[in-house]
Amino acid sequence: MTTIQEQMPQADMVKWRRHLHRHPELSFHEVETAKYIQKVLADFPNLEVSSLTENSVIAVLKGDKPGKTIALRADIDALPIEEEADVDFPSENPGVMHACGHDTHTAMLLGAVKVLSTMQDKIAGTVKFIFQPAEEEPPGGAKLLVEAGVMDDVDMVFGLHIAPNIPVGMIGTRKGAASAASDVFTLKIQGKGSHGSTPDLSVDPIMIGVEIINNLNNIVSRNISPFDNAVISIGEFNAGKTANVIPDTAQIQGTVRTNNKEVRSFIQKRIEAIIDNVCKMYDATYDLDYLLGYSEVNNDSDATDLVIAAAEKVVGKERMFEAPKMMGGEDFSAYTDVKPVSFFILGGGTAAEGCGYMNHHPKFKIMEECFSVGSAMHAQIILDILGQK
Amino acid sequence: MTTIQEQMPQADMVKWRRHLHRHPELSFHEVETAKYIQKVLADFPNLEVSSLTENSVIAVLKGDKPGKTIALRADIDALPIEEEADVDFPSENPGVMHACGHDTHTAMLLGAVKVLSTMQDKIAGTVKFIFQPAEEEPPGGAKLLVEAGVMDDVDMVFGLHIAPNIPVGMIGTRKGAASAASDVFTLKIQGKGSHGSTPDLSVDPIMIGVEIINNLNNIVSRNISPFDNAVISIGEFNAGKTANVIPDTAQIQGTVRTNNKEVRSFIQKRIEAIIDNVCKMYDATYDLDYLLGYSEVNNDSDATDLVIAAAEKVVGKERMFEAPKMMGGEDFSAYTDVKPVSFFILGGGTAAEGCGYMNHHPKFKIMEECFSVGSAMHAQIILDILGQK
Amino acid sequence: MTTIQEQMPQADMVKWRRHLHRHPELSFHEVETAKYIQKVLADFPNLEVSSLTENSVIAVLKGDKPGKTIALRADIDALPIEEEADVDFPSENPGVMHACGHDTHTAMLLGAVKVLSTMQDKIAGTVKFIFQPAEEEPPGGAKLLVEAGVMDDVDMVFGLHIAPNIPVGMIGTRKGAASAASDVFTLKIQGKGSHGSTPDLSVDPIMIGVEIINNLNNIVSRNISPFDNAVISIGEFNAGKTANVIPDTAQIQGTVRTNNKEVRSFIQKRIEAIIDNVCKMYDATYDLDYLLGYSEVNNDSDATDLVIAAAEKVVGKERMFEAPKMMGGEDFSAYTDVKPVSFFILGGGTAAEGCGYMNHHPKFKIMEECFSVGSAMHAQIILDILGQK
Amino acid sequence: MTTIQEQMPQADMVKWRRHLHRHPELSFHEVETAKYIQKVLADFPNLEVSSLTENSVIAVLKGDKPGKTIALRADIDALPIEEEADVDFPSENPGVMHACGHDTHTAMLLGAVKVLSTMQDKIAGTVKFIFQPAEEEPPGGAKLLVEAGVMDDVDMVFGLHIAPNIPVGMIGTRKGAASAASDVFTLKIQGKGSHGSTPDLSVDPIMIGVEIINNLNNIVSRNISPFDNAVISIGEFNAGKTANVIPDTAQIQGTVRTNNKEVRSFIQKRIEAIIDNVCKMYDATYDLDYLLGYSEVNNDSDATDLVIAAAEKVVGKERMFEAPKMMGGEDFSAYTDVKPVSFFILGGGTAAEGCGYMNHHPKFKIMEECFSVGSAMHAQIILDILGQK
Repeated sequence: MTTIQEQMPQADMVKWRRHLHRHPELSFHEVETAKYIQKVLADFPNLEVSSLTENSVIAVLKGDKPGKTIALRADIDALPIEEEADVDFPSENPGVMHACGHDTHTAMLLGAVKVLSTMQDKIAGTVKFIFQPAEEEPPGGAKLLVEAGVMDDVDMVFGLHIAPNIPVGMIGTRKGAASAASDVFTLKIQGKGSHGSTPDLSVDPIMIGVEIINNLNNIVSRNISPFDNAVISIGEFNAGKTANVIPDTAQIQGTVRTNNKEVRSFIQKRIEAIIDNVCKMYDATYDLDYLLGYSEVNNDSDATDLVIAAAEKVVGKERMFEAPKMMGGEDFSAYTDVKPVSFFILGGGTAAEGCGYMNHHPKFKIMEECFSVGSAMHAQIILDILGQK
Repeated sequence: MTTIQEQMPQADMVKWRRHLHRHPELSFHEVETAKYIQKVLADFPNLEVSSLTENSVIAVLKGDKPGKTIALRADIDALPIEEEADVDFPSENPGVMHACGHDTHTAMLLGAVKVLSTMQDKIAGTVKFIFQPAEEEPPGGAKLLVEAGVMDDVDMVFGLHIAPNIPVGMIGTRKGAASAASDVFTLKIQGKGSHGSTPDLSVDPIMIGVEIINNLNNIVSRNISPFDNAVISIGEFNAGKTANVIPDTAQIQGTVRTNNKEVRSFIQKRIEAIIDNVCKMYDATYDLDYLLGYSEVNNDSDATDLVIAAAEKVVGKERMFEAPKMMGGEDFSAYTDVKPVSFFILGGGTAAEGCGYMNHHPKFKIMEECFSVGSAMHAQIILDILGQK
Repeated sequence: MTTIQEQMPQADMVKWRRHLHRHPELSFHEVETAKYIQKVLADFPNLEVSSLTENSVIAVLKGDKPGKTIALRADIDALPIEEEADVDFPSENPGVMHACGHDTHTAMLLGAVKVLSTMQDKIAGTVKFIFQPAEEEPPGGAKLLVEAGVMDDVDMVFGLHIAPNIPVGMIGTRKGAASAASDVFTLKIQGKGSHGSTPDLSVDPIMIGVEIINNLNNIVSRNISPFDNAVISIGEFNAGKTANVIPDTAQIQGTVRTNNKEVRSFIQKRIEAIIDNVCKMYDATYDLDYLLGYSEVNNDSDATDLVIAAAEKVVGKERMFEAPKMMGGEDFSAYTDVKPVSFFILGGGTAAEGCGYMNHHPKFKIMEECFSVGSAMHAQIILDILGQK
Repeated sequence: MTTIQEQMPQADMVKWRRHLHRHPELSFHEVETAKYIQKVLADFPNLEVSSLTENSVIAVLKGDKPGKTIALRADIDALPIEEEADVDFPSENPGVMHACGHDTHTAMLLGAVKVLSTMQDKIAGTVKFIFQPAEEEPPGGAKLLVEAGVMDDVDMVFGLHIAPNIPVGMIGTRKGAASAASDVFTLKIQGKGSHGSTPDLSVDPIMIGVEIINNLNNIVSRNISPFDNAVISIGEFNAGKTANVIPDTAQIQGTVRTNNKEVRSFIQKRIEAIIDNVCKMYDATYDLDYLLGYSEVNNDSDATDLVIAAAEKVVGKERMFEAPKMMGGEDFSAYTDVKPVSFFILGGGTAAEGCGYMNHHPKFKIMEECFSVGSAMHAQIILDILGQK
C-alpha cells in the first residue's frame, strides 16, 4: 500500500514549480501565472474553475455526497528582488523573483488538486482550492477575495508556508497567534536641494532622514515593553545621486511588525510624531503614507488539531514541531477574521541541506523533496475532514 | 565710438550658448561639444586650433608683434542633472544639464575669440584660448592639460565663473583664496540583508549609514575651529528598494570643502575613523574611496589687479564688488599651481531678475544679457596686457 | 475558627514596617536595620538567632520533631533615592528610601516568625528565617550568604516580592524564569575640556556620551530578536556643571536585563564594542566597569506547586494569578543555583487603591492591608510542608 | 632712563595677584575682593575711590589740568571651577578659581594706578579706573555699571585680556569685531522616571537629552554658512545617579557664540525648535531658559590706533600681532554700545613657557612676567592721550 505522500505527483510538482520560478510576476500582476495555473488545472477532472478577483484562480471540487466546504489556499505572487540563488532555473524576469516560495506553494496545491480531483467518490462535501494573488502587497489578495465572497460558503481554511531553515519535510503547527500584524510606511521628505558647499541654503533631506531613522530606532528599545514583540525596520533610504549636490528629497520605506493591537497603534502614533517633529524642526515638509497591512493570523484550536492529526499520519510525531511565533506578516489573516483557519509550516531544508537564506533574500532556496509532504498534508486534511466514512 | 562691450557678438553668443545648452555632455564625454566649438572657430581668421587632451580645444592667436602669452580659459562640460529650468531651449540629453553655466562660459570665450581674432595688428604677444573639458569631475580636465604642457609657454591665466545670485553684469574680484579645496568620497557599506521582521539576522546597512552620517555631522560643529571654513555634505544615500527587506548594502557619497591644508587633512582622517569604527562596532565591512580633488584657487595679486583694471573699464567701479571666499571647488586651481592666475565672478542675474537657483540646481538659470560683459572682460584683459602701445 | 490570615499580627507588622521605613539603610550598610530585627526577634520564643554575614540575621526555629529544613527569606536593604512618597512616616535618612518594599518584606517575615515561633509543637523539621542584606547591590547579599553556607542544610527556599500595581493581597505565581539576569555598567569617558567657544581644542565627552547612548539604543531594536526579552537602560549621565565650559569627563551608568545567556553575552560584547569604537573615533579614552549581576530566578516546579497550594488556602483561587515574566533582577537567583526555590508576588495595591508608582520610584507606595496575606503565605507554606500530620 | 615698563611695581603686582588668586570669589559675590582692592588703593595718593554698583570699585584720578576722561577697566570675578593648576598659591576657596586671569587683570590695573597716581602733574584730564565685578555671568557687571552711569563722563575706554597661549608680553590688537556674542541656555527636561527594567513606563529624559544634543550638533554643520563663525557647546548634562533607575528629569546647559545678529537669532530659533519638537515627539515637557548674553566687542578704529601706538612704545612692533577674532564672550561689549573702546590681548605665556591650558580650564596658568607689560600699556595709553604737552 502506498502512503498518501507516495501518491503525490512529485515530478509534476517539480516541473510546475520550476516553470513558475522562471516566470515570476509581481503582486497584482500575476497574469501569466494565473493562465498557467488554469492551463494545468484544465487537465484535471471534476473541477469548476473560475476567477473571482483579478488573477485569482478558484477550483471547486464537489464530492459525491454533500458535506462541509473546506478551502485550501496557495499564494502565487513573487517579489521585486533580483535573483541570486544557486538554481538551474533562475528567474527570467529581471528584478522579479520567487524569493518567498509561493511558486512551491502553488505547485504543491496543484499536486493536491491532481490527486484529490480523482477521488470525488471518496469525498462528502466540497473542496475549494484557492490560488490567491498578491500576498506580498497590502491590502493583499486575500482581503479582496474575502470581500468578493470567497469565504461565504466555506467552513474552514488551511494553508501552509515553506521555511528555508527547517529540515526538509518537517511540519510545524501552533495554536493562537502565528504571524505578526504587518504595516508598511512610505515617507517622502521634501527638503530643498543646494550645492554641497552651501548647506545653509538647503533643507537637507538626507540629514533629516538620518535623524528620523535614528529616532525610530529608539521606539522598540525605549518605548515598548521588553515582553511585547515588535520590530520597526527600514528597507529603503534613497536620496541623491552625486557626491556634491544636496538633493531636494529623500524617500524612506519601512515595515512595522507587532503582535498586539495597542502596541501596533502606539507605534504608528509615535512614528508619525517623530516624522512630523523632525521635519518641523528643520523646516522640511513631508508626505507619509502609512498603510495598515495584515493583522495577525490566529490559528483556530480545532482547525489546528486537524492539522496536527494529519501531520501525524503524513510525517509522524518525530518530524513535527511547535512553530514559533513569527514576526512575518501573512495576508492569510484576512481569512482568520471570518472563518476558523489553521496555517502551518513546511520544512524546506536547512543550511546544512543547502538552503539557509531566509525568505526575501536574493539567494533564497528550498529543497524540492518537501513537495510531496506539503501536498500530502493538503490531501490528508481534506480526506480526514470530508472523507466518506 | 563703441565700447568694447558693444563690439561683442551678443546674438552669436546667445545662439552658441543655446545650442550647447540643448546638447550638454558629461565630464570626459564632451565629444560633440568639442566638435561644435571647432566648427564655430573654423569661421574665425588667424587661429591655430588644436586639441591637447581628449575633447579639449586650444585656439592660439599670435599678434603681429612678439610679447607675452596670456591664456583665457572656459570650461565646457555639463552635469548629471535632469533639467527643470524654465527655459525655451532645455537639455535634449535626458539626465544631463548645463546646470553650472559652462555653456555660457564657452559662448563668452567664443565671443572673445571672434572679436580678438580680427585684431592681430593690435596685439603684441600670443593669446591662448583654452576650451577645457571635465571641470566637474576630479581629477579634472585642467590637471590633464597642465600635465600635457598647456601652461608651459603661458605667462598668466584668466577665467571667470557666472553666478546666478548676482545682478546681471556685475564683476567680482578677490585676491588670495577664492575657492575651496574640494574632496569627494564614496562609501559602500557591506552589511547583511534579511527580511525586515528579523533584524537580528541582519547587519543593517541603513542603520549603520545613519550612524555614520550622524557622526560625520559632528565634525564641523565639534572638531573644527569656528574660524576655519569647512563643509562636509552628503549628496547620496542609497540603500534598498522595498519596505520590508533590509538590504545587504548601502552607498553613501559626500563632499568635503575646506580652505586650509591641516583642516583638510584632519577631516579626512576623522571621516575615515568614523566610518571604520561605526562599521566595526556593528560587524559590517566597507569600501571607502576617498578622492582628493581640487586644491584652492589662489588669485595672484598682480593678475587680479589686471582684472580690476579691466573691470573698471568694462563695467565701472559701481558695478564691481569684492568676491566672497567660496566653498565651491574649481579645477582652475590646477593652473594656480604653475602660473599666476586670476579667476573672477560675473553676475548672471538675481532672483529678482528671474534667476536665483544656485549652481547644480535642476532649475539653475542665468540671464544672457551678461554675455557681452563677460566676453568684453576677456577681450579687455588681453588688450590691456598685450595691446600694442 | 480564625483563618491563618487573621492570626497574623497586623498591628505589629505595621509598627515594625513604619519604623524600618523611617530608618532606611543602603545595601551593605544595614547596621541599625539588623539591630532592630534582632531586637524584635528577642521577644519571640524558641529561636536561635545569629548573623552569618555582615548585617544578616538568621533565626532558626526547630520543631518538636525532626524533618526537612525550609528557608523563608526577606531582604532588608533600601535604595539611594530621596523619598517623595505621600506617607505619614517618610524616610528620616536624606537620600535613602525603602522604595522597593523591603521594609514590608521584613515586617511580614517578622510577623510569620512571631506566629510560627509559638507553634513548635506543630512542626516536624526546621524553619530558617533569613533576613538578608544587600539585595539591591551586586554581588548581592544572597550570594554571600550562600557562600557562607546558609543553604547547606536547607531543602527548599521561599520568598516573596510586593508589587505596587497589583490589587491588595493577590498572589502571583509562575514556574520557570521569573526574573531577569541583571548586569550593570559604569562608564567614565575621558575627554579633554576646553572653553565652550573652542570646541576644536576639546575632546568633548558630552558629545561622545551622546553618541554612545544613541548607539546603545540601537542594540535592542536592531540586533536582538523581537522574541527575546532584553532591556538596556541608562540611569545616569553626568558631565559638567556650567554652560560654557566643556568638561573633561562624563560618567554614564546603565543596566542590562536579559532572559537568556546568549543574548546576555551578545549585549555585553556589543556595548563594549560601541563604547570602544565611539571613543576611538573621537580620540577619547575611557574606563568601563561592566559588572555581571544576578542571574535569572528560576522557580522550581514542585516548590511552586507548594506555593500555589498555600495560596489557594490563604486567598483562594479567585485572588491568584500567573505572575508575568519580569525584567527586574533579584539576588534570590543565588539560591536558585543551589536549591529548589519558589519566589512569588504579593499585590500591594493598584493606582486605584492609591499606589501605582513602580518600584524604585521616589513616590513608591504600598497598602499595608496586604501584610497579613504575605505573612500568612509564609506561615501556610511552612505548615503545609512541615506541619505534623 | 627707565622705560615705563621698568617703572611698574612688578613685585607688588605679583603679591596682589597671588592674594587674589588664593581668595577667588564668584561673579556677583566679590565682597572680599572689592575690600582688598579698596585696601590697596588706600595707599595711593590723589584718588577718589567709590563704589557705583555692588562690589564695584571706581578710582578717579584728576590731572592738574582739565582734559578728556579716559577709563581703564579690569574685571575682578572668578569661576566655579576646582583649581588643579600647578601653582604655589592655589585657590583656598573650594570649587572657585581665578581660571580666566581676572586676578592678573586686577593686579595690573592696580599697578597702573600706583604709578599714575603720582603723576597728577603730568596729566591733563581724568583717569577713571574701573574694577568691575561679574564679567563671567550675564547680564554682567559692565552692563550694570553702564546703567548706573559709569560711562556718562567718559570719552574712551580701554581694557585687556591675558592669553595663556601667547608668548609672554606680546600685545595683540584688532579693529572691529573682537569677541563673540555669547548666549547661554539652561534646559530642564521633564520626563517620567521608572525602574530601568521598564523603559516603556518611562518618558526617558536621558534619551531625550541625547537626541536633543545630537540634533543641536547639526545646526553649525548643516544650517550655518561655512563663512559665518558660530559655536554651540554643551557644558552640562546631568541626569540620574544610579545605574538601574531611569530618572524623572535631565538638566542640560549650553552656550552659543556667534558673530552676526542674523546667525545669532537663527540659532536661537532652531535650538528652541529642536528642543520643542524632540520633547513633543517623546511626550516630555521642558523648561527652557534662554539668556541673551553679551554682544560682540567692537573695537573703535581710533581707539585701537591709540593702543597700537602705545604698544609700539612698550613692546615694539616685533612683539605685536593682529589679534584673531574670538569666540569668547566679553561683557566689555556693554561699553562698546555707548563709547569708543579698544580691547587688546596680552600674552601670558605659551605651553613651551609652562602655560598652555586655556581659559576656564582647571589647570589654567599664566606667567607673571607679563604684568609689567600689561600695566605699562595702561599707563602709556593714558600718558599718550592725557599727557601734558
